[in-house]
Amino acid sequence: MIRIQLNIELNYMVDTQGADFVFNIHAARTPSQAVSAERCVISQAVDTSVHTDPASGNRYMRLRAFGGPLQLSYSATVDITHHRADPSTIAEVPVHRLPPQTMGYIYPSRYCQSDRLLRLAANQFGYLAPGYARVMAIRDYVARHVAFTSNTSNANTSALDTIVEQVGVCRDFAHLMIALCRACNVPARFATGTDYGADPALGPPDFHAYVEAYIGDRWYIFDPSGTAMPMAFVRFGTGRDAADVAFATIFGSVQTQAPVINAWAVQDALLGIEMPHYSHQALSTDDGAVRLH
Amino acid sequence: MIRIQLNIELNYMVDTQGADFVFNIHAARTPSQAVSAERCVISQAVDTSVHTDPASGNRYMRLRAFGGPLQLSYSATVDITHHRADPSTIAEVPVHRLPPQTMGYIYPSRYCQSDRLLRLAANQFGYLAPGYARVMAIRDYVARHVAFTSNTSNANTSALDTIVEQVGVCRDFAHLMIALCRACNVPARFATGTDYGADPALGPPDFHAYVEAYIGDRWYIFDPSGTAMPMAFVRFGTGRDAADVAFATIFGSVQTQAPVINAWAVQDALLGIEMPHYSHQALSTDDGAVRLH
Amino acid sequence: MIRIQLNIELNYMVDTQGADFVFNIHAARTPSQAVSAERCVISQAVDTSVHTDPASGNRYMRLRAFGGPLQLSYSATVDITHHRADPSTIAEVPVHRLPPQTMGYIYPSRYCQSDRLLRLAANQFGYLAPGYARVMAIRDYVARHVAFTSNTSNANTSALDTIVEQVGVCRDFAHLMIALCRACNVPARFATGTDYGADPALGPPDFHAYVEAYIGDRWYIFDPSGTAMPMAFVRFGTGRDAADVAFATIFGSVQTQAPVINAWAVQDALLGIEMPHYSHQALSTDDGAVRLH
Amino acid sequence: MIRIQLNIELNYMVDTQGADFVFNIHAARTPSQAVSAERCVISQAVDTSVHTDPASGNRYMRLRAFGGPLQLSYSATVDITHHRADPSTIAEVPVHRLPPQTMGYIYPSRYCQSDRLLRLAANQFGYLAPGYARVMAIRDYVARHVAFTSNTSNANTSALDTIVEQVGVCRDFAHLMIALCRACNVPARFATGTDYGADPALGPPDFHAYVEAYIGDRWYIFDPSGTAMPMAFVRFGTGRDAADVAFATIFGSVQTQAPVINAWAVQDALLGIEMPHYSHQALSTDDGAVRLH
Repeated sequence: MIRIQLNIELNYMVDTQGADFVFNIHAARTPSQAVSAERCVISQAVDTSVHTDPASGNRYMRLRAFGGPLQLSYSATVDITHHRADPSTIAEVPVHRLPPQTMGYIYPSRYCQSDRLLRLAANQFGYLAPGYARVMAIRDYVARHVAFTSNTSNANTSALDTIVEQVGVCRDFAHLMIALCRACNVPARFATGTDYGADPALGPPDFHAYVEAYIGDRWYIFDPSGTAMPMAFVRFGTGRDAADVAFATIFGSVQTQAPVINAWAVQDALLGIEMPHYSHQALSTDDGAVRLH
Repeated sequence: MIRIQLNIELNYMVDTQGADFVFNIHAARTPSQAVSAERCVISQAVDTSVHTDPASGNRYMRLRAFGGPLQLSYSATVDITHHRADPSTIAEVPVHRLPPQTMGYIYPSRYCQSDRLLRLAANQFGYLAPGYARVMAIRDYVARHVAFTSNTSNANTSALDTIVEQVGVCRDFAHLMIALCRACNVPARFATGTDYGADPALGPPDFHAYVEAYIGDRWYIFDPSGTAMPMAFVRFGTGRDAADVAFATIFGSVQTQAPVINAWAVQDALLGIEMPHYSHQALSTDDGAVRLH
Repeated sequence: MIRIQLNIELNYMVDTQGADFVFNIHAARTPSQAVSAERCVISQAVDTSVHTDPASGNRYMRLRAFGGPLQLSYSATVDITHHRADPSTIAEVPVHRLPPQTMGYIYPSRYCQSDRLLRLAANQFGYLAPGYARVMAIRDYVARHVAFTSNTSNANTSALDTIVEQVGVCRDFAHLMIALCRACNVPARFATGTDYGADPALGPPDFHAYVEAYIGDRWYIFDPSGTAMPMAFVRFGTGRDAADVAFATIFGSVQTQAPVINAWAVQDALLGIEMPHYSHQALSTDDGAVRLH
Repeated sequence: MIRIQLNIELNYMVDTQGADFVFNIHAARTPSQAVSAERCVISQAVDTSVHTDPASGNRYMRLRAFGGPLQLSYSATVDITHHRADPSTIAEVPVHRLPPQTMGYIYPSRYCQSDRLLRLAANQFGYLAPGYARVMAIRDYVARHVAFTSNTSNANTSALDTIVEQVGVCRDFAHLMIALCRACNVPARFATGTDYGADPALGPPDFHAYVEAYIGDRWYIFDPSGTAMPMAFVRFGTGRDAADVAFATIFGSVQTQAPVINAWAVQDALLGIEMPHYSHQALSTDDGAVRLH
């Protein structure tokens, strides 16, 4: 088991007319991700509602803020019990055997226009044997062709832009990998959360975007940007792409400051809590097996 | 109540390697749309599975076909009891009061990139009073700016193409109206089904794509292409856009023939079954009221 | 006659590997634009070559800079004798009567994809009588639909983006107006130069991009962004679009500072030099009449 | 010397309102391409004007046709004396040594958006030694990544579409190769003409689009689609991309029939006229050396 302590602080300056916010920064509660000691403090005395999406487990907090400063502080202790598997044992699932709830993730979405990448995907990955290794080949292709550079993409940037421009941030890597997976008929979804800053080379903890692909009988984690340690990801949300699970969707005129994020792993051998580390095992934090009945 | 008799015949020639199909041509079963005398015949002796999506009520039929001809015949009797309302009584719902299950429909999707149309929507519709009439103004804007012309768009065509090219078919009108609604923070979704060919000027019955917008406390029908009679629509599916509810999603090499569609209205005054007609009332065939608790 | 005194200072920090520059910041020499007291100082002791394009009169200065700071100072006195005409007398030229050298300006270019705007142009402007007033209607359409906002566009932004996003800077206004003119079969080209900061409401002098449309028998000036006074424009270059006449095209790794531009009008009644002012007359600084022989 | 006999027949049905045509189907007259026995017959008694562009040598024929059928028959005897060179001797020209008249061909154009492909080009070709072999590597990359399939692209399709979709016709191959060359600072232009149907495997003679890249001291021919024999190309026009040198640009409502093209090589040993053949030599039909003075 991995234990991550999480602190997030978000700061906004809201225009006098007020603004609506939808936050997706609560750690998801799943059978493999337990959330305790959770605390969310809002600097304004406004009503908040938290809705848990029954299909994804995503928790969306909505509020309508007044004009003026708005601060949101979120902290939690998150215990993650990964499903770990030998990659060589994980097969792709043929289309006619895909569970219905995964089908939406082989269709194109706003930022993952897989419908236009069918030939490229077939040319690059069509000759590979289906399975975890092929999905990893897609992941490696994206990691190899795209350079991680801040401020090279924006909220409109999609997988088509990234395949052309070959530059972006974690969100762009994820969108391109998802689009290529779907073009190979592998369900793939966009996952958000935090990474963990143990490794100074990877920089401080930050919001992160990565990929979950449905292979074998569950959703496995892939990190195409290669900037973080998958075992230490805390999952906030999963969706078709960034449109579904933005950290904050804002309706109104708001100035946004850089978020302050702290995430650190806790070790406790007695409790069986180990430190996150790089692993060649396939990792999943999903709700368990999803099979066609 | 409206009663539509429906007959659909689809014909394909499947390559020798076989192909997977996902059909969404079953009339949806909703509290306001009752389906009886339903029959679906497949020319090949293959397993089929029909999955009803719990959120949308869409029924997806999957099968894996052999090489050779594949014929699918579907027929049903569909009784539609519309919720009808006075448009002037229907208000828009502010973002912070939107029911959670409608939130996904204000985000951009593959063919409805509302994120890029925020200023255009504000310029065109921002000054209008929120409500049914504003959504109708969006519908009229699309009807006025886009010409209905066959073979001018394809499976990649999105709302951005349609706002630029100003031409398309019903699917394109629907995508553009949806994108503009979402850019105004009105949840909007893509609906598919059949229209009804009573009016020779509108041509024979056909598959149709139209829009449902969430205003007041439910999803109301809009027909931006203006090529059909909304009261006679049989609903198959609803989704983010055409990616979710294609009549047939095909995985493999298949030649497709033009579908043969028959839909006719039945009148029976004794049973209270009336003929469909154009109406200034707002119409909904949804599952009833959806309100924020 | 208008006399503009011009001072331009450009500052760069060139990477150690050096970099190639193509500048287009020399005032064009045309029969109606006389350039005197011209001076161009480069801080590095490098060879420069100035090439005058025979067709456009554009003057391109090329140099290969060393690593380190590079400063370019350009100053000139520019006397402009506009051709002025009564707009109501200026007709459009039918396609089969266009002079050959104008034909290239009805074809689409990188940032002015007129081929995709044919229907939009026909819908918006097709019913108007051809002539100067119709071109002005295109200019006004762009001015009305696009908001001038800094930092909303970049070097990739094209007319298609601007028609969708409805925001941009002078370059984007110009590209959209050009694309719409071409879609109406009116030759239109991209012009660059400086504006004149007499009016504090319009801000200090700056580089500027505007439009020249071929109507009547010559190229007339239009300013779709409406941020400057056309009579005081000094012309540097004309081309298909910004790709042809960038102020500086840079090959290599270079940091660019904001340019420092001064432009002021000089009055001298004895010499017949008047102050620039807004005028309802049609203005041209072109080389004179261009007619099909 | 190569001698090609050329016959072209174009057929149109012009709407009653008439239509303007710009044809670019006359064989270019260049120092290395001599045109004799030329004949152009128009079925309508209309004025035609042929303009030879001084920079490119392209010959554009314009006419305004009446409503009704329009037939154009063009025939010519074309003698081509290629400049032939050993590829290993041909170097790329650094930007600061490029002749001014080639500079326009390193800038992006409508269908060759090289500005968005800088990183991809650097990643794929940046490590190769500059020269003919690097340009050939670009040609081979395009040939390898794009599949030749009719009816997969249209008049809007650009290099960005082709790099994503990986399918197209000769025009699309040419646009992508041009964009990649320009992204490497190699001037490249779009060339049109006819191919030669000696090889049954390559199909009958047809209109063709290919590439000329400026390396060494002249423009060399490249055929990225690999569907034809470069030595037998008759050149009609060269331009930035297909927007400049369409075989026919039509203004008005016209139905177009498939062109009928015949091109055959003539052999005459006495006259030193040889049959075209595949060659590893670099070929140029340009006006001779173009050097920076």
